[in-house]
This record gives sequence, C-alpha cells and structure tokens, in this order.
Amino acid sequence: MSFAKLDEIGRKLEALEHALAILGADEATHMAPGGGEKRAEALAALAGMYHRQAIAPEIADWIAAAEQEVLNENQAAALGEFRRQYTNMTCLPPEFVERQTGARLRCEQLWRDLRAKNDWGGFLPALSGIVELVREEAALRADALGLEPYDALMEQYDPGNRVAEIAPIFTELKAFLRDFVPQALAVQQKRLEKTPRRELSGTYPVDKQRELGLAMMTAVGFDLTHGSLSVSHHPFCGGVPTDVRITTRYKTSDFLSALMGVLHETGHALYEQNLPKEWSHWPLGKARGMAVHESQSLFVEMQLARNPAFWRWALPFVERHLGESWSIDDILAHVLHVERGLIRVEADEVTYPLHVILRFELEQELVAGRLEAADIPDAWDAKMRDYLGLSTAGNFQDGPMQDVHWPAGAFGYFPSYTLGAMMAAQQAAALRREHQAFDDDIAQGRFEAINNWRRQRIWSQGSRWSTPELLERATGERLNAAHFIDHLKTRYGG
Amino acid sequence: MSFAKLDEIGRKLEALEHALAILGADEATHMAPGGGEKRAEALAALAGMYHRQAIAPEIADWIAAAEQEVLNENQAAALGEFRRQYTNMTCLPPEFVERQTGARLRCEQLWRDLRAKNDWGGFLPALSGIVELVREEAALRADALGLEPYDALMEQYDPGNRVAEIAPIFTELKAFLRDFVPQALAVQQKRLEKTPRRELSGTYPVDKQRELGLAMMTAVGFDLTHGSLSVSHHPFCGGVPTDVRITTRYKTSDFLSALMGVLHETGHALYEQNLPKEWSHWPLGKARGMAVHESQSLFVEMQLARNPAFWRWALPFVERHLGESWSIDDILAHVLHVERGLIRVEADEVTYPLHVILRFELEQELVAGRLEAADIPDAWDAKMRDYLGLSTAGNFQDGPMQDVHWPAGAFGYFPSYTLGAMMAAQQAAALRREHQAFDDDIAQGRFEAINNWRRQRIWSQGSRWSTPELLERATGERLNAAHFIDHLKTRYGG
Repeated sequence: MSFAKLDEIGRKLEALEHALAILGADEATHMAPGGGEKRAEALAALAGMYHRQAIAPEIADWIAAAEQEVLNENQAAALGEFRRQYTNMTCLPPEFVERQTGARLRCEQLWRDLRAKNDWGGFLPALSGIVELVREEAALRADALGLEPYDALMEQYDPGNRVAEIAPIFTELKAFLRDFVPQALAVQQKRLEKTPRRELSGTYPVDKQRELGLAMMTAVGFDLTHGSLSVSHHPFCGGVPTDVRITTRYKTSDFLSALMGVLHETGHALYEQNLPKEWSHWPLGKARGMAVHESQSLFVEMQLARNPAFWRWALPFVERHLGESWSIDDILAHVLHVERGLIRVEADEVTYPLHVILRFELEQELVAGRLEAADIPDAWDAKMRDYLGLSTAGNFQDGPMQDVHWPAGAFGYFPSYTLGAMMAAQQAAALRREHQAFDDDIAQGRFEAINNWRRQRIWSQGSRWSTPELLERATGERLNAAHFIDHLKTRYGG
Repeated sequence: MSFAKLDEIGRKLEALEHALAILGADEATHMAPGGGEKRAEALAALAGMYHRQAIAPEIADWIAAAEQEVLNENQAAALGEFRRQYTNMTCLPPEFVERQTGARLRCEQLWRDLRAKNDWGGFLPALSGIVELVREEAALRADALGLEPYDALMEQYDPGNRVAEIAPIFTELKAFLRDFVPQALAVQQKRLEKTPRRELSGTYPVDKQRELGLAMMTAVGFDLTHGSLSVSHHPFCGGVPTDVRITTRYKTSDFLSALMGVLHETGHALYEQNLPKEWSHWPLGKARGMAVHESQSLFVEMQLARNPAFWRWALPFVERHLGESWSIDDILAHVLHVERGLIRVEADEVTYPLHVILRFELEQELVAGRLEAADIPDAWDAKMRDYLGLSTAGNFQDGPMQDVHWPAGAFGYFPSYTLGAMMAAQQAAALRREHQAFDDDIAQGRFEAINNWRRQRIWSQGSRWSTPELLERATGERLNAAHFIDHLKTRYGG
C-alpha cells in the first residue's frame, strides 16, 4: 500500500526534523563556544539528508498511487498535505536551488557585516542579485502552483493566503492606523501629564525572573513535562512538540522585557504542545503556518498578557517573585506603552502593522519588477514619512537594512506578522462572543476554557485546513480587520 | 578516486554520529521528562540510517579499489581503519543482528525490573538466551576475523587485545592482589587506630561544588571552549570532540564523590578534545578503544587526582571553594580508602581488578560453553569468597545481576576496565622515567608537561595503532603488570 510508504517516510523525516530541531535549540543554549563549526557541518549534512529523502522521485509515485487507495478521512487529509508539501519542495529545479542557496548565504553574511557599517552601497549588488532570484523563484512557483507570483511565495509560509484578499484588508488597516497612531499617542500623552510614568526602579535577579517566568508560563498552560525554559541571545521557541524549548534573555534592570518575551514564546509553545500527536510524523500534524503560529504567540502576548484584566491577576505574582509593589496603572503604563520608532522588532502593537504593510507593499513591487533594489531606500523613506512621520534618509541600518528576511531571500513572509496579530484579535473576539467570561477568566488567572476553545478550534487541527479556512472555521468568518481595529480602539483609544 | 568516496561517506557518518552523541547527552541533561518516547524513536531511526550507510555494500568495493590507489601515509592508515571498522560491522548477518538486538533489549528491560527484586529465576531464561547468542556471535566474528572466539569479541572494544597476552597478566595480578588486599587493609587499619578518620562534616552547596569542579577540571587541562559540565543521574562523558559534555551528580553531604567523578570524566574528555581534528570524520581519528579510554580517565583520577602530591596543590582549591580547612592526611584518608565490597562500581582501585578478573574468567567459560548461565551464581560466589572473602550466596542483585553488560550482550568488555588501570600506571611509570619532575609538577598544579607527553603519545594518535601497539609505542614495552603492582605497593603498602 502506497500510503503506508508515505507513512514510513514520514517517520524517517520526523526523526531528522527532531535531530535538526534539538541540535538547533542546543546550539543556541548549551553548545560549547568552540563547537559551532562541526555543528554547522552536522546540521548541513542532516538537512541535506532530509531534503534528499523528502524530494525523492518515488514519493511522487506513492502519492499518485495512494490517491487511488481507499483511505479513511484522516489519511485522505494527510495525503493532501503530503502532496502540497511535496509540490512546494520540488517545484524549483535543483540547479536553481543551489544557485539561490549560495546567493542567500553570501548576502546574509554580507548583511551581518555591512548593516553595522550602514553600508548600503556595498550591500546593494548582493541584494539586487537576491531580488533577481526571487523574481525567478516566484515565476517558477507560480507556474507549478497555478498562482500569482507573490501568492506563490506566500504559499510557502501560509497556504491559502492571497494578495487579492489581504491587500484590501491591509489598506483598510493602514488608513485606520495613520489616524489612530497620533490619536493613541495624544491619549497617552494626556495620561502621562496627569500621572507621570513610574520607572522600573529595582534590580531583578535572574533567578527570580526565571521563577516568575516559569510560574506565569505554566499558569497560562505551558506543560513543563513537555518543554523547558532556558537562556539564549535571541529568544525563540524551538525543539519538538514533545519537548518544546523556549528561551529568553534577562536584563536585571527590567523584568518586563523577559516576561513578555516568555509569554510570547509560550504562545508558540502551546500550539506545538497541543498539535495532534497521532499525526506528528505527517505534514498534516504540523502547525499550519507562520501567520497562524504568530496568531498563537500574539494571542498570549497581546490578547491575554497585555490585557489590563491579566494584570489584576498577575500583579500578585510579580510582587511575590520580585518583592516589589506596583499599582495596575503603574504596570500598564509600561505594558501598553506606544511609541513611533524606526525598528520593526521594537514596535508596539499599534505601530507594528505599519512596519509590516510598508514591507508588504515594497515586496510586491520588487517581485513584480516595478521596483528595483536600488530604489528601495527612497521608497522606504517616503513610506516611513507617510505612515509614521519618521525619516530614514541615509539611515540604512535602521531602514531597509534592519531585517534579515530580504538578504535571506524570504519574500512573502512579512505579512504573516500582522496577519497573526489580526487573526489573534479575531479569535479573541469570537471567543468573547461564545464565552462571555473571557475577561473575567483572565482577571482570575483561569485559562482552561480559553485554552479548550483554542485547542479545539486551532491546535488540534494541525494542517487540516488552509490558513483562511482554519480562521473561518474557528471564528465563523473570513479575515476581518474590524476585530483588530476594535481591539486597538478599546485598548488605546482613551 | 575511491578513497575520496570513503572520505565523503566518513563525513556523512560523522554528521549522524554528531546528532546521536548530542541527542544522547541532551536526553540525560536537558530533555523534558515527557520527551523520551519521541527521542527514542528519533535515535533509533538515526542509528538505523547510520548503520545502513556504514555497511553499504559499495563501501567494500571502495575499500578494495582504494587499496590499489596511491595514498599518502595518513590516508593509508585511514584506509586500514575503514577496512577494520567495516569488517567488524558487517561480519554478522542482518538476520542475526535483528534477533540479537531484540533479545538484548528484552533481557536488559527484564534486568532493570528483576534486579531490584533479586529475582534470578525470572531473569535466567533471558540471560541463557543471551549466552547462546553470544556464543553464536563469537563464532561468527572469529570466523570473519580469523581470531579465537573470545578475542573476536574483545576486538570490538580493543583491537589487538588477546587472551593469550592478557590472561597470564591477570593471573599474575590476581595472585598479587589476593595477598595484597589484606595487607593494604591491615596498613589502613593501623593508621586509623592511630589517627581516626575525620568525617566530611559540612554541607556543600551544589553551586560551590560545581565551581570547584570547573576550576579543577580546567586546571587539569579541560578546554571549556570545547566542552561543558552539567548534571545527570549517571555521570558520563559524551558529546563530540569539539563539544565534550561531561556530567556529574552532587550530594550536599559529600563533595569528594562529585569531584572525583568530574576528574575521572575529565580524563575521558581530554582524550576526546585532543584527538587529531583533521581526521575527525575517519575511523582513524576516533579514540582507540575502551581500554585506552579508561586508561585516560584513570590516569587523571588515579595517577593524578588520588596521588597524594595532587592534594598538596588541590587542598587550597577546596578550602577556597568550600570554606573548609583540612589537613592532607584528613583528605587522603578519604581519597585512598580501601574496602572489600560486593559492588564493582563502588570498588576502590585496589579491589576493583578482582571484580573484573572474576568476570573475565566467567565470560571466557561462558563463551567457550564450559559454563552455563544457570551455573553463574555458584561460580560467582566461589570466586568472590576466594578473591575477596565475601559471599554472594542468594544475593543475586549484588552478585551476578549487578551489571548491565551481560543482559545487554556486551561480553569481552569487562577486561577493559582493569587493562585501563594497568595501562594508566604503565604510562605514569614511563612518564616518570622521562620526566622526573612528574610528582613535583602535580604538587604544584602544573600539568602542561604531563599533558604534552600524553598528547604526543596517546591523544594525537587516534586509532593509528592497535591497543597493544599504542601502549608499546607510548611506554617502550608491552603490557606489564609490574607497573600497576608497584603503583599499588607504593600507595597502599605502608
């Protein structure tokens, strides 16, 4: 039976994924400093084994044969995802993949060096090469998938996402935010004039912060028998569903950055820990995609942990662990602080979407050939002035050189961040409709009903549905900007 | 060129070994408790990939073809080890390996359960099956390698070790120890009557013990840029040469057990960290075998760290880290304590070889068919009475059920422990002849000259020579019990 062969190759690939995931997490947390070179060799060789086995030509035959077999419902769904993954992995010719991989590695290395030097001129030729390649890639993918070129790129990260649906929603959101950011800042200014912000004043020992983080993440639902928290330079959620590794980094002068980071990664971890275990070796059993994943991390961070209700419950935790006493208003002034800035990863939830929409717009122009790499800085600066009133003229490192995505060749990824934020708001709105105690639950540290809803609607579904289908099934409607806009108005509109 | 193909397969196998080694160390140190099942699946699948690639039939052709190619000296040596490893890995038919693997797994599981219950009767049928299989294995290996059956088993662990050479040496050592153990105990008794042993009285916080361990291991030569120390239930040295993971476990009532354990594992680690890096993907670049590895750990533990000279330098370390003040005699009464006991892994260096020789003698009888599994308890008890004056009648769990080796099917391994102890003493004797400041160096915490000698004679040689050849080239003579006997006389003879 051909489906059995797919099942078996799935188990082999799962073993290699397991090794890659744990070795990757280990590298950032426990590897000896001099172990990097051999680790890189091992990871490259294992990734090569994974790739060769995943694209083996006989898999196409097995998929075709299995489509003629009598399968149960789960197997049929699994088969669909086997085909989707196989098509996405094999639609680029090997010679192209090799050319692109080399160019990406070189451009990313150059970027690491030149960003710090603000050297756009030195970086531009390599980026131009990447842009040429991504146009070629988009055409190849579009051809294989029967999609528009930019849609074909997004398809790698979020199956089913289409510009035709997203672009109007982003346009609506952009129009709202251009007015709303100044309004939210004015509200904040007024409040600060009345009650100046009390700065974090203490010294917060790392072990106390770690205990606080562990207490909060388990309260929110993280299962410490299937995961752990450690330290790394860049926080991440890695590992495997049975052993999810989340990390943070600590500043002794500020406990909130680590704590909010831990809760964000906990959101990713909950998704991984609650995926359907019996499908773990099938593509069907993996998380749906980047936007859905981000919706889960942002659900915990934005819908739960930055919700004022949350702090009615959380403050005693903080007091107990850090021995400091705050009022709700003291802490919310930090948790909900809004500020215009140049850097996407430092942005708050109000301004963040404008950073994303800027990149989404430029990416489409770049892929379509209507914009060249050389023209990015001017286009970037114009949009930054327009959307956020900030200039990046001559400041490349805080402008178009700030992200790794483009040098790494990842076009079509940026929208996932804001789609995730919107989907999280839409899920929270649906949950509130169906479970009116939502905010009361949060204020009392009760996350069971909330997590049960999320488990049933999102986590347990794995990759059963496309991204828009999953959202529609979970919330009863297609992506709708109104929920995120309402969320921002309620929280920041004064 | 066929040698190039071997070189390439060597790199692939190194990547899989890397994954297996790091995942193995991670499992014992940082894995979430619920991650074990998927980890076991991943390890089994990766080990299967390793095995299939290592025994691929084309490798035999490449080896044969490479033997006709013009190779440099290192390549020629590498080729010899490729052949040796390939022969040892392929000399058992796959159906036999499958049968044996299943029997070993079942017997080991049974042993874990029944040892605690002292249930020899329940355990015997499984062990009898293992003994049958090891006789079959020994015959198959003997046939393929042109060796005597028990030699063919030892060949897996220590290439070149032969009963014809070892048995007379063990007989000599046994004869010496049967007289010497009572003598050493009498000397100790007399000393204790004069100066009673001062017990470890403090509470030693884990973090202080860890700092002490790190300070000692780096002083002895451990490179913390290529390795680390963490905690596990059973101490081990694992990982890869560029990232050696050693572990220990701490008792707050006793710092010596963890510290001596750390130094023992540091001996293993120094060997791994100093193997020839340019050969790391060839069998030639690996550590020679179990006896040589044990000689390196016992060199650090017995020749350095339990050397009274060591404590002239080490005591201030202990005082600084633990805030306790001891005299040299106080500490040596613990470090050099001798005691007859039933358990091999708890034995001191004087009584330990008798535990090994007992097993070595029984193993040979079992493999030769002159002893059956059912007769082990009586034979064991007779030898324990004879060699150590202790009875194990009816006490199976502290007798023939105490070790994992036989249930796991590892026959021919036990001699390595005592061969390691003897080789360590022989290396120390050679070093003292050539570097008369040996003990002065130790007393001053200077290990550079000692480590340079070991690097040149042992570590840098990888698997260049058979075990006896390596020892002879390093020390100028074949294995000679006189060095170990002199060592024991000097240290424990009063």
